[in-house]
Amino acid sequence: MTMKRKKVSVIGSGFTGATTAFLLAQKELCDVVLVDIPQMENPTKGKALDMLEAGPVLGFDANIIGTSDYADTQDSDIVIITAGIARKPGMSRDDLVQTNQKVMKAVTAAIVNYSPHTTILVLTNPVDAMTYTVYKESGFPKERVIGQSGVLDTARFRTFVAQELNLSVKDVTGFVLGGHGDDMVPLVRYSTAGGVPLESLIDSARMEEIVERTRKGGAEIVNLLGNGSAYYAPAASLVEMAEAILKDQKRVLPSIAYLEGEYGMDGIYLGVPTVLGAGGIERIIELELHDDEKAGLAKSAESVKAVMNILE
Amino acid sequence: MTMKRKKVSVIGSGFTGATTAFLLAQKELCDVVLVDIPQMENPTKGKALDMLEAGPVLGFDANIIGTSDYADTQDSDIVIITAGIARKPGMSRDDLVQTNQKVMKAVTAAIVNYSPHTTILVLTNPVDAMTYTVYKESGFPKERVIGQSGVLDTARFRTFVAQELNLSVKDVTGFVLGGHGDDMVPLVRYSTAGGVPLESLIDSARMEEIVERTRKGGAEIVNLLGNGSAYYAPAASLVEMAEAILKDQKRVLPSIAYLEGEYGMDGIYLGVPTVLGAGGIERIIELELHDDEKAGLAKSAESVKAVMNILE
Amino acid sequence: MTMKRKKVSVIGSGFTGATTAFLLAQKELCDVVLVDIPQMENPTKGKALDMLEAGPVLGFDANIIGTSDYADTQDSDIVIITAGIARKPGMSRDDLVQTNQKVMKAVTAAIVNYSPHTTILVLTNPVDAMTYTVYKESGFPKERVIGQSGVLDTARFRTFVAQELNLSVKDVTGFVLGGHGDDMVPLVRYSTAGGVPLESLIDSARMEEIVERTRKGGAEIVNLLGNGSAYYAPAASLVEMAEAILKDQKRVLPSIAYLEGEYGMDGIYLGVPTVLGAGGIERIIELELHDDEKAGLAKSAESVKAVMNILE
Amino acid sequence: MTMKRKKVSVIGSGFTGATTAFLLAQKELCDVVLVDIPQMENPTKGKALDMLEAGPVLGFDANIIGTSDYADTQDSDIVIITAGIARKPGMSRDDLVQTNQKVMKAVTAAIVNYSPHTTILVLTNPVDAMTYTVYKESGFPKERVIGQSGVLDTARFRTFVAQELNLSVKDVTGFVLGGHGDDMVPLVRYSTAGGVPLESLIDSARMEEIVERTRKGGAEIVNLLGNGSAYYAPAASLVEMAEAILKDQKRVLPSIAYLEGEYGMDGIYLGVPTVLGAGGIERIIELELHDDEKAGLAKSAESVKAVMNILE
Repeated sequence: MTMKRKKVSVIGSGFTGATTAFLLAQKELCDVVLVDIPQMENPTKGKALDMLEAGPVLGFDANIIGTSDYADTQDSDIVIITAGIARKPGMSRDDLVQTNQKVMKAVTAAIVNYSPHTTILVLTNPVDAMTYTVYKESGFPKERVIGQSGVLDTARFRTFVAQELNLSVKDVTGFVLGGHGDDMVPLVRYSTAGGVPLESLIDSARMEEIVERTRKGGAEIVNLLGNGSAYYAPAASLVEMAEAILKDQKRVLPSIAYLEGEYGMDGIYLGVPTVLGAGGIERIIELELHDDEKAGLAKSAESVKAVMNILE
Repeated sequence: MTMKRKKVSVIGSGFTGATTAFLLAQKELCDVVLVDIPQMENPTKGKALDMLEAGPVLGFDANIIGTSDYADTQDSDIVIITAGIARKPGMSRDDLVQTNQKVMKAVTAAIVNYSPHTTILVLTNPVDAMTYTVYKESGFPKERVIGQSGVLDTARFRTFVAQELNLSVKDVTGFVLGGHGDDMVPLVRYSTAGGVPLESLIDSARMEEIVERTRKGGAEIVNLLGNGSAYYAPAASLVEMAEAILKDQKRVLPSIAYLEGEYGMDGIYLGVPTVLGAGGIERIIELELHDDEKAGLAKSAESVKAVMNILE
Repeated sequence: MTMKRKKVSVIGSGFTGATTAFLLAQKELCDVVLVDIPQMENPTKGKALDMLEAGPVLGFDANIIGTSDYADTQDSDIVIITAGIARKPGMSRDDLVQTNQKVMKAVTAAIVNYSPHTTILVLTNPVDAMTYTVYKESGFPKERVIGQSGVLDTARFRTFVAQELNLSVKDVTGFVLGGHGDDMVPLVRYSTAGGVPLESLIDSARMEEIVERTRKGGAEIVNLLGNGSAYYAPAASLVEMAEAILKDQKRVLPSIAYLEGEYGMDGIYLGVPTVLGAGGIERIIELELHDDEKAGLAKSAESVKAVMNILE
Repeated sequence: MTMKRKKVSVIGSGFTGATTAFLLAQKELCDVVLVDIPQMENPTKGKALDMLEAGPVLGFDANIIGTSDYADTQDSDIVIITAGIARKPGMSRDDLVQTNQKVMKAVTAAIVNYSPHTTILVLTNPVDAMTYTVYKESGFPKERVIGQSGVLDTARFRTFVAQELNLSVKDVTGFVLGGHGDDMVPLVRYSTAGGVPLESLIDSARMEEIVERTRKGGAEIVNLLGNGSAYYAPAASLVEMAEAILKDQKRVLPSIAYLEGEYGMDGIYLGVPTVLGAGGIERIIELELHDDEKAGLAKSAESVKAVMNILE
């Protein structure tokens, strides 16, 4: 019968982490602890204070603190990991994977130490392998270690479709399976605008362009920004997943989930439709796939395994 | 460059009209004029004042007035008609139709007099025929006279599916064509939960029960209440349509629209997928129907015509 | 670390109870159990179902059920009591008090049986004496039995001031002490519009009229409606108090609180400024009163005691 | 009777401008045009697209575009200026003022060319002098050129008071006159927590510390960030002012307004209580000041004049 506020810790105070923290507070979902390394402690505190000072104007009651001390994350209901490096010019994929793997291990150990019963959401790339790393390092049950990619991919798909048809994004639905980016497997046949199937609104050639633009959606932003990558839509995606868990909403959202037999896969994290509620991933939904979709998913799984092989 | 608040008039201050007015104000979409006949002027004023006094607590700035004087509706952006009688025991269908037809004619004349450029939403039953009556009486272009039934039917369908699967209503989509209630033509094949087709989640026998419960959804509430009919979900449905128009959202919502050739129909109002924006019904979406769906729609049209024949 | 949804039970499915239930669901604060007597079970179920069917349209995930079985209220986080009769023509005050006292006793026993750790909000009139009755019957600590009147009175005051000055209700603050209606003690000297003291915006004669209209605010609605009393603003007021407790917001709101020495009073429930959070009334704020304000509060206390003497 | 969406242009796509654009879209207040110089065109487009892609997840319908072409700002309802440089180490105040003055002149000419009937909100520092520059350059009536500082200062004050008392920010009110930062004149005597005067909750020595922290609130963030200045709370403040105008809310908010006799000042922009609605600054509220408050305001005015003397 205790009714204290929920608590979410966000690891990494860069653009994505900070935007995630701000959205969580704006929605009054929880108190927020924004965490970064000791060298970033002051900027992290500065961002948190700036957000807090927006509270009276935006009308939210939520405490937000910045810290480099994991003790402040104690008893978090959810921990969101955005920490890690982005791939820089000249950096090999192996270097990226191994560097971020080290970050995941260190972060996870600290999280688990203070919040042994929390649920962890992972955004750091390559997200399938990093979620796997956190899963192994945490020793948590699989339903409480979840990666994000499909919510964001779907959001981009819906944005492009809504623009194409000059319709509200509220009414456009879409759905993707598999990995992030190039390995994304869109299920266009079940995508609709207000219940009207997209195939009756957009011809297949144009639809293929939209799917391709979605696949390259992250790169499109990177190329435009010139320096850095997307953070508004990724942060919003993390917050939607966190809200589903905090409010036990039983949302049907694509998650990077640990598969043990589902879709014929075993022992890897892959993007599949899930039900998110208070228990984390409460259910993995299996659906009949066409042959081309099965092939796409298999290709996705191959890519994930290739990255997992780099893990130490 | 004037930015004065939008204005919506709601005709009929019964439960549905009052709840509609309250939701419009809560969402800060517009100022609201709640209108009823002179004998109901004081209760109408009382409800409006009570709503207004909730404003400081709920945090909305919207003026709400009750009146019996149509001059107060002048220059409404939208007028919503909820007035009319419900069918009482012993009353013939013809009596119901003709009584409400008289109400529609009187109300429409008064509306048009003060707001010649408004858009009219009609809820009064039998809604297809009543929307037609308002269309004829107003002399308005067809895109600015719109009936509500499909948003409500879809909402009920989504509620029942979400309950069946223990999933968030946010992720369940559905879609209906045709008339209200028994004449509803549900397009289950395009209904999904988070993009996952319902047919892979619910077997067809159970789905048929859900469709049937949706068809009888209004009667279910009437039977439970014992006295009166549903008003929360109908009011919410009207407000969603009004918001789409006020904010020019290009929502894809089922509307009762005047058909001139679409779906092989001509000269009747029938429930079809539409795009709602600042221009009212900006587009009617035609989609390929299976034979059973075509038959269902034809049956719906027959029912509407049967009622139209009763109109004087 | 459990994150199941909060649960609020609303006793009494009349207009106020139903509107309270709907607002709680709309704000996605909790699941809602709407309770009434067995004879009203079906209408209560009907209202709950109608509200639930508005969920997909308004976008809320909250379960709402109607029932006459208190077992359904088990483990409620908050219980809100709106049950009881209104004073009818020809009914003596003593009859009203004693009838509602019986209702409070029966309701409280049932609540406590199923939710021994809940917090109870009381709206039923005469609210000071009825809150006292619930307090005694429940055996709960005083901070978990709370009456509503000041939030509503303040909302009305703010509405009238905002209208007078043609300003946003968002920026008008006000504050009342003491009992509901005639016994209300408004603290105009601390009321502001956006921080600007009202005394520099409204002359004292006009302010006295506004205060007097606030005192008679309930009667104004009763007279207009002709049949029944206000329910939109009372329901909104209950929901604001419930939200403060559910979200542990530490809101400063006027509550009917049990006084043990504060303001020189002992052993009675009276309207005073309080801090509402997860612990119910977490703090009673005592402030220096002018002599006329002290006299007003003493008069309020006398009225409450006079009613308490009627209690059996 | 046209109901097309509102349009707001935000000049400057840095952190504050981008956050402002995002909040405007999130609240579905308008479509947004984010403008920066040609060299920043791609990053500006990237930010806008990233925000747009958050729309399906956060549930908002608003178009957001990035551009360096002022033609895209045509017929904006409001233009918000966040462009300009921040003072760097070693830069003289005169250099700062004159550089930003040039920016204001260029930006204003472009704005006025495409939106001759718009309302302009200015954030660029030193804000009083920059607002004056925009006023002169635009040739607009004074009520349509408005500077921001008091909403932000008040937000910080409310945050610190709420923290001090462990109370909801929703209930803490405050009010400041005069310039930004050191020249701020807080009117503590009218500040309350839920209507309870702060002077009865916080002793005067502690209150003086809170006021002083508020005065240095911008510097506190700058020092923590190490590189850059606050943007969340400034953006939220701009959006509150814009919302008041777009929705004609008649909010009582402190604005930097052009004074012609009010408060004994003439021909300067200074922070005073105003009513913001569709007409921009619809009213300046004059209130009786104590002698120390008058002195504070005079000192503020001196500071503003000193900066105005630097203007070319």
